[in-house]
Amino acid sequence: MFSGAQFSISVMSDDFADVILGAIRAVGEPEDVRMETDELSTLVVGPPKRVIEVIQQCYAEACRRGGHVTLNALLSRGCPGEPDDPICTPQEPEGGVIPDPESVAELGIPVSAQFSLYPMGLSDHMGVVFSEIERAQATSVYEKGKHFCTKLRGDLARVLACVSACYEGAASQAGHVVIHLSVSKGSPSESA
Amino acid sequence: MFSGAQFSISVMSDDFADVILGAIRAVGEPEDVRMETDELSTLVVGPPKRVIEVIQQCYAEACRRGGHVTLNALLSRGCPGEPDDPICTPQEPEGGVIPDPESVAELGIPVSAQFSLYPMGLSDHMGVVFSEIERAQATSVYEKGKHFCTKLRGDLARVLACVSACYEGAASQAGHVVIHLSVSKGSPSESA
Repeated sequence: MFSGAQFSISVMSDDFADVILGAIRAVGEPEDVRMETDELSTLVVGPPKRVIEVIQQCYAEACRRGGHVTLNALLSRGCPGEPDDPICTPQEPEGGVIPDPESVAELGIPVSAQFSLYPMGLSDHMGVVFSEIERAQATSVYEKGKHFCTKLRGDLARVLACVSACYEGAASQAGHVVIHLSVSKGSPSESA
Repeated sequence: MFSGAQFSISVMSDDFADVILGAIRAVGEPEDVRMETDELSTLVVGPPKRVIEVIQQCYAEACRRGGHVTLNALLSRGCPGEPDDPICTPQEPEGGVIPDPESVAELGIPVSAQFSLYPMGLSDHMGVVFSEIERAQATSVYEKGKHFCTKLRGDLARVLACVSACYEGAASQAGHVVIHLSVSKGSPSESA
């Protein structure tokens, strides 16, 4: 199964380039994933959990350096248009169990986020979407539904653990699953 | 059919709030769409073409005021989870013809962009995706395929016209279609 992501970090300050480059340097290029950056996004290819870990690490580093910092990510697994796997098959999560987002240690980075889930190639895609929204609703980071997406709020690690759990849950029912995720830290309109 | 988008504009400078608020004020709130903003994104609800026009107008205003400015947008039409339409049906484009992106007047704003297309509820979703990638390839703004998305480069108006044409093309084959789009203007790593 081909698994990876395109993600981009935006830093709302004049020194944005230093913040982003500093964060990327701090993370380095882990040996177990492939990374490539252009002016639009950074590609990470690797197992789904590692991909989310690397994105979390880069974004957390940028958050620690910057004020208002956002993340946009496209996560994809099992896409039949990708090179290594012409056939998509649903996959059970590692160890057969989806980790509980509440069990994850907090990072001390409060964020708000929204994500949308696309189980591809199914006639009843909304059945999978609704069951994964229920999974998110059962966590402490669920805030509310919005048009086209689900809004979360809480510590960055718990928010991403919730998204990761929904990604695993959907992947056990669909071979090709995509998630789009937006995260924001330090927005001045946070309390609006 | 319920149609709309969630979009967010990021301005990589200390005066980001003024740039964004100035752009939003310049556009106002057109009477034929519904708009709502929170700290993560702005919702626009309206016919697909108008939704793209409003997003283009907001982003163009911000680009004219700022240096490095990015746009992230989730466009959705026909989602069966939305309130007004329990059944999705494919729709022919207005007037039966998809406008030619090359016929659109340029704005003088050069951008690079990437987008991904999700025709939902189809067992052969990749057939629709590949035919719409072919449509993009036939335009002057096509740059290349990337993992999980298609990269475009050119004037903002032509880039969005290309995305809009693929959105219409997919919607004639699938009732529920989603596009995710990232656009970047003025990135310092543009020539990297």
